[in-house]
Amino acid sequence: MTVTRVPTAPACLARVRDEVEPAMRAAVQRLGDELQRPIAYHLGWCDEFGVPTSGGGKGVRPALALLSAEAVGADAAVAVPGAAAIELVHNFSLLHDDVMDGDRERRHRPTVWALSGVPTAIIAGDALMVLALQLLLEVPGATGAAAARRLASATAAMIEGQVDDMTFESRVDVGLNDCITMEARKTGAILACAASIGAELAGAPARAVDGLDRYGLHLGLAFQAVDDLLGIWGDPTVTGKPANSDLTTAKKSLPVVAALDARHPASFELRSLLATPGLDHEQRHRAAELIETCGGRERTAEFARRELALACDALEAADLQPAAVRELLSVAHFVVERDF
Amino acid sequence: MTVTRVPTAPACLARVRDEVEPAMRAAVQRLGDELQRPIAYHLGWCDEFGVPTSGGGKGVRPALALLSAEAVGADAAVAVPGAAAIELVHNFSLLHDDVMDGDRERRHRPTVWALSGVPTAIIAGDALMVLALQLLLEVPGATGAAAARRLASATAAMIEGQVDDMTFESRVDVGLNDCITMEARKTGAILACAASIGAELAGAPARAVDGLDRYGLHLGLAFQAVDDLLGIWGDPTVTGKPANSDLTTAKKSLPVVAALDARHPASFELRSLLATPGLDHEQRHRAAELIETCGGRERTAEFARRELALACDALEAADLQPAAVRELLSVAHFVVERDF
Repeated sequence: MTVTRVPTAPACLARVRDEVEPAMRAAVQRLGDELQRPIAYHLGWCDEFGVPTSGGGKGVRPALALLSAEAVGADAAVAVPGAAAIELVHNFSLLHDDVMDGDRERRHRPTVWALSGVPTAIIAGDALMVLALQLLLEVPGATGAAAARRLASATAAMIEGQVDDMTFESRVDVGLNDCITMEARKTGAILACAASIGAELAGAPARAVDGLDRYGLHLGLAFQAVDDLLGIWGDPTVTGKPANSDLTTAKKSLPVVAALDARHPASFELRSLLATPGLDHEQRHRAAELIETCGGRERTAEFARRELALACDALEAADLQPAAVRELLSVAHFVVERDF
Repeated sequence: MTVTRVPTAPACLARVRDEVEPAMRAAVQRLGDELQRPIAYHLGWCDEFGVPTSGGGKGVRPALALLSAEAVGADAAVAVPGAAAIELVHNFSLLHDDVMDGDRERRHRPTVWALSGVPTAIIAGDALMVLALQLLLEVPGATGAAAARRLASATAAMIEGQVDDMTFESRVDVGLNDCITMEARKTGAILACAASIGAELAGAPARAVDGLDRYGLHLGLAFQAVDDLLGIWGDPTVTGKPANSDLTTAKKSLPVVAALDARHPASFELRSLLATPGLDHEQRHRAAELIETCGGRERTAEFARRELALACDALEAADLQPAAVRELLSVAHFVVERDF
């Protein structure tokens, strides 16, 4: 399968604002004012003074949820609680991860803990996680419970992935497979859930739901590989993160692990450089060069392309509606070709 | 209804170790090692070096869950996933509350964040919350989903209660009703869920489930009122908390709010004393005296007795199995008469 360049966001991402955001806003409005404020800020709906803004994430996850209902011939409306729930769980994880990772900025703005304190970020995340499951448990019939079960499993996997990610920082023996397993849990599981929850809510047969789930898992791995590349070589004015941001910590991202794993002469210099605490700007720049010299950049890009191809293959094997499949393919290409 | 002194823990609390703890251990064993360790420590199953210990909480919540199945004529076994899930959610909230409240000790031991850092306490709490809902979502049929819905609602209420509790600290205008609403959410909702989830899992009629839920809510309010009394006048060697521990922060517990609300001449001295940041031992002792002078201690004790009576009345109105009702009554009395 050839990967073609997709310069702009697919149209289906724009649908999220009209079709999913109202459900998310209605859900968040159930919470008390003290919770609504930091959550609306975090979601990009308002600034730190509560003044409405237009913003928010890329909307990939909820778009996948809508398309997964259409892929099995159902109306996208059936997937809306799933799309909203996925986005709420994703944001629960961002709120908590920012605290755990000590990240003070996200999307060019202070993170919630940096702005309002750790307790606010913890409780806001907790509230989003429970709210997400409530949305699904309120869907009548067995499909709501099945979707809730799927989301709870994905969330459990995501939590294990975050644990791996944190413990890897203090380990020197992280191999490429450990790293891929970590990313499959941390990013893959929730994308797999996003890509299948609409079909689950539509009551589709297991073969279709499983195919969509596999598509989402491989897409998640491709997505994370691209994120890892952007975390080192992304343009700070586009990504909203500092230059070489992933090299400010001992984070074991794919390019780093692939470079260390390469047994290239430069791997040794890289290993000792990365063992230095608090790398300065020059040192981070040098580390990025060494990672590239050891092939870490190219191996990660190759991995992303391979996972993208596997994602596309999973769709083709699952006997789905062609129009929705075309859109799912365009999302997949967009995710891998993006530069933010 | 007369309140009689119950000096020892009711026998049903001892059942928890045999009937619920194995399910909790099996659930926790599904998690990765890095999560199991802090959770086993927090639950009192091991010390900070991983050496097994006998310990753990009072077991009131899981005991209520078992009894609520028996109260509707079902076998307690049907309630086990509910009992385990309730205890896991309760412990999720303790892990996160200890971080948010800055509490370094619980049950005479360092809290998880104090021992292993804030990230560990956050992620361990997250893992427990998801695991709890998974246990219920794995129960086949509609009763599992209904129980999960009930637990998610109670957890959402508990989170709102924690938000109230935190925001009350910086407010000077908290009234008695605000305080009772906060405690109904923070403690009442999860006890209401504990006392009804076994009946829900048994597929009992709404009248029985609702009666048990009301019993749990009133019992929760009585429980929290007693906790508030112990937080000021409890014996540190028994409670495991410092003397007058609730007066070390600006916590708006029932005795404090009732005393401030009393418009007694001593209320004014109390208000200005409590506005002092970082009260020393002497000042906390003086504040406790003033709260008593203003009637805050007696009003709280009276409130606990009234809620206990309402809890017992709710049971009697619900047409339940007499043997289980007797045990539920003994738990209720134990909770109000306890000194830890």
